[in-house]
Amino acid sequence: MRVVCLDMEGVLVPEIWLGVAEKTGLEELRLTTRDIKDYDELMTHRLKVLDQHDIKMDLIQDVIGKMGPMEGAKDFINGLKKHAQVIILSDTFYGFARPLMEQLDWPTLFCHNLDIAADGRIENYRLRTSDHKTKTVKALNALNFCTAAMGDSYNDTGMIQEASVSCFFRSPQCVLDDFPAYSHFTDYAEATEYLLTTDLK
Amino acid sequence: MRVVCLDMEGVLVPEIWLGVAEKTGLEELRLTTRDIKDYDELMTHRLKVLDQHDIKMDLIQDVIGKMGPMEGAKDFINGLKKHAQVIILSDTFYGFARPLMEQLDWPTLFCHNLDIAADGRIENYRLRTSDHKTKTVKALNALNFCTAAMGDSYNDTGMIQEASVSCFFRSPQCVLDDFPAYSHFTDYAEATEYLLTTDLK
Repeated sequence: MRVVCLDMEGVLVPEIWLGVAEKTGLEELRLTTRDIKDYDELMTHRLKVLDQHDIKMDLIQDVIGKMGPMEGAKDFINGLKKHAQVIILSDTFYGFARPLMEQLDWPTLFCHNLDIAADGRIENYRLRTSDHKTKTVKALNALNFCTAAMGDSYNDTGMIQEASVSCFFRSPQCVLDDFPAYSHFTDYAEATEYLLTTDLK
Repeated sequence: MRVVCLDMEGVLVPEIWLGVAEKTGLEELRLTTRDIKDYDELMTHRLKVLDQHDIKMDLIQDVIGKMGPMEGAKDFINGLKKHAQVIILSDTFYGFARPLMEQLDWPTLFCHNLDIAADGRIENYRLRTSDHKTKTVKALNALNFCTAAMGDSYNDTGMIQEASVSCFFRSPQCVLDDFPAYSHFTDYAEATEYLLTTDLK
């Protein structure tokens, strides 16, 4: 039996912060790790911007819920689940992902946590553990599962290198150039076939 | 975020081998680990009985599919999934569990594998790893998850002792007598509240 580990943003749902920036009109939320390398600095910036505009959890969840999953993502997951175990490994936060998970029939998601105040203000974020994607695939390998992994970006390359069957999905060219050993798909049906039927290395 | 680890047989679905014994009328399939202590000996006996009666995978799956999940089990899982990540940890086999998982909307299941011949004969079984329930909860703890566990029998006591929040569900009295430290539920709604809201030890 295979466990298929999927990245969330860019693979199943749109980039959350870009969507929030677009729907709120707050350009300062467009910054990514390409602009501010330090993740803690970036998240502190984002939470400060939300605070300055009095944007609380319910508004964010409403915005994210309206973004919706990518077209075909729900059928993709539900198709995989019939032949493999599926775990989504994401660096987002449960509070943000919740409205999207509901639209995907609540698949199993491993990610991080937010501290939400009683009035809905996002006070802080807590990474559950560093590099949890790679650690999770290692743990599944140690449990004698056959692991498959698919993601789109640099924070997926750890799990992609660790899993037995791996590929990229709709990745930026820079990622593909830096990791040329892996297949790249843009279509869910082709990715499904690859993840489920590729012989294990 | 909590990960709730649930046993399958006796908690979500009926005991599979008892159901197969009943529906096929084969009394020899009623033997359990209480009758034959050695698991390998028991499984070898079961597969031999199936062979003697020319019972193949499709018939077994048909029988198991008709057993169906326990009343309320689907709502129980779907209710938990809205507030926690749910992983079913079972000592059954993917081939047997498949028709039941379909009726439960394909929740994430960690269990073992069967070797099926081209003609559908069950040739052998392969335990993915020993004591995988305990090992999985340990791995989830190491990934900094809050773990909760619920099962009904002796093969659940490892994960129950390892998880932060644990209880039994519709257990035989002997199990409860041997492990008196844990709460025992017979109702899904009460179990849900316990698993989701009990403070972590």
